[in-house]
Amino acid sequence: MSPPIVCLSMEGGAAATTPAALPYYVAFSQLLGLTLVAMTGAWLGLYRGGIAWESDLQFNAHPLCMVIGLIFLQGNALLVYRVFRNEAKRTTKVLHGLLHIFALVIALVGLVAVFDYHRKKGYADLYSLHSWCGILVFVLYFVQWLVGFSFFLFPGASFSLRSRYRPQHIFFGATIFLLSVGTALLGLKEALLFNLGGKYSAFEPEGVLANVLGLLLACFGGAVLYILTRADWKRPSQAEEQALSMDFKTLTEGDSPGSQ
Amino acid sequence: MSPPIVCLSMEGGAAATTPAALPYYVAFSQLLGLTLVAMTGAWLGLYRGGIAWESDLQFNAHPLCMVIGLIFLQGNALLVYRVFRNEAKRTTKVLHGLLHIFALVIALVGLVAVFDYHRKKGYADLYSLHSWCGILVFVLYFVQWLVGFSFFLFPGASFSLRSRYRPQHIFFGATIFLLSVGTALLGLKEALLFNLGGKYSAFEPEGVLANVLGLLLACFGGAVLYILTRADWKRPSQAEEQALSMDFKTLTEGDSPGSQ
Repeated sequence: MSPPIVCLSMEGGAAATTPAALPYYVAFSQLLGLTLVAMTGAWLGLYRGGIAWESDLQFNAHPLCMVIGLIFLQGNALLVYRVFRNEAKRTTKVLHGLLHIFALVIALVGLVAVFDYHRKKGYADLYSLHSWCGILVFVLYFVQWLVGFSFFLFPGASFSLRSRYRPQHIFFGATIFLLSVGTALLGLKEALLFNLGGKYSAFEPEGVLANVLGLLLACFGGAVLYILTRADWKRPSQAEEQALSMDFKTLTEGDSPGSQ
Repeated sequence: MSPPIVCLSMEGGAAATTPAALPYYVAFSQLLGLTLVAMTGAWLGLYRGGIAWESDLQFNAHPLCMVIGLIFLQGNALLVYRVFRNEAKRTTKVLHGLLHIFALVIALVGLVAVFDYHRKKGYADLYSLHSWCGILVFVLYFVQWLVGFSFFLFPGASFSLRSRYRPQHIFFGATIFLLSVGTALLGLKEALLFNLGGKYSAFEPEGVLANVLGLLLACFGGAVLYILTRADWKRPSQAEEQALSMDFKTLTEGDSPGSQ
């Protein structure tokens, strides 16, 4: 039984510190994310006529809302446990949940924008791969938020249930985020082919700018995934809880810590 | 030098078991992967006229080679350490490296097909987001293979160097695979918009089949990622080696295991 206890005391020391490289990686991810939002705005402003709700420009609210909500805010919601690693767990949880609500509401505005635009124009809905992936993202995101809320914020769930659900929550959170990035890439590609047509292959400035925007989207996804998955950057308290839950399980059920 | 020996003897003991659910998840991923390859073939055969090298059908070799090489084989190369968890480490390593070589060679045929087709038709190269992402995948894949080979198969690298590089290798391997899936989705979307145009929005059978193919691509990516990242499905020897390497580091350099 001694290894987890030794591990805890060593981790207790580590909890006070922040890994030296983490702030630089987080700063880099924020630089990428903000550039992404700014460049989406620049693309829509310079080449697509800007944004307005009551006109043909209503469509343009769709990409901007999705990049702000489902890419930038969702990505940052995933990073909350790495960035605020020394704050109280409950505060971090609430911030994580709130960022996801903001992301969802902004994304909903983006969803209404495109459906409303299609209705006014008489265009068909939900025929493209982009729209199928988008609806999948919304359903998964909503279910994940509901289940996450009931397990982690609502006071009913037991400690062991939370520990068992946590890895699934993290996996599906990362997957939904990556699917959002993929869906955004599909949407960008669709917009480029619809708007530029044959001019796309002539290296028009709009096409090059949008390609760079696509690469930035992929890089932001990669940067968030790197910070999220790096083992030695995980919030120490989570590992402590896990170890304690395993010790507790060992004591009560007689299982070995590695057996589950 | 004793820790690696201890590690080997522990590997013998721990290696006897396979997590109960793992084979089902692996079987499911293979079912998805094979359906993906078959459906790509069906799409090209039924709606795109089939495949031939010396004609306009040369283009069709591109999606088929990429789905077989950079999606199915690359995905399976990542799973080798989970599937063959009880085989000798060296055998598994060689299989991992070989699958990646097969994937790269098949993908190169797919790359030649599209460049050759563009040249014969007089089409512009490398203007689209799909092609930019594709070239990025190729460069990263090649570099990852070379660096992976020099660290893990070439006998020069030290034990501690390998341990320090391993997490980076795994992260970049998963990222390149996911970028390959994203690039395939972009290519599929491009083919649909070029070939179907306005008919895409009329729910043509080809469009629906290709959308399902796109969702299957995303699901295969998700299934491989799940098997790869589930903590209790990791090859036991790796965790033990890591721990032992840290202990060894502690003993020799006086660092605490959590300090790096």
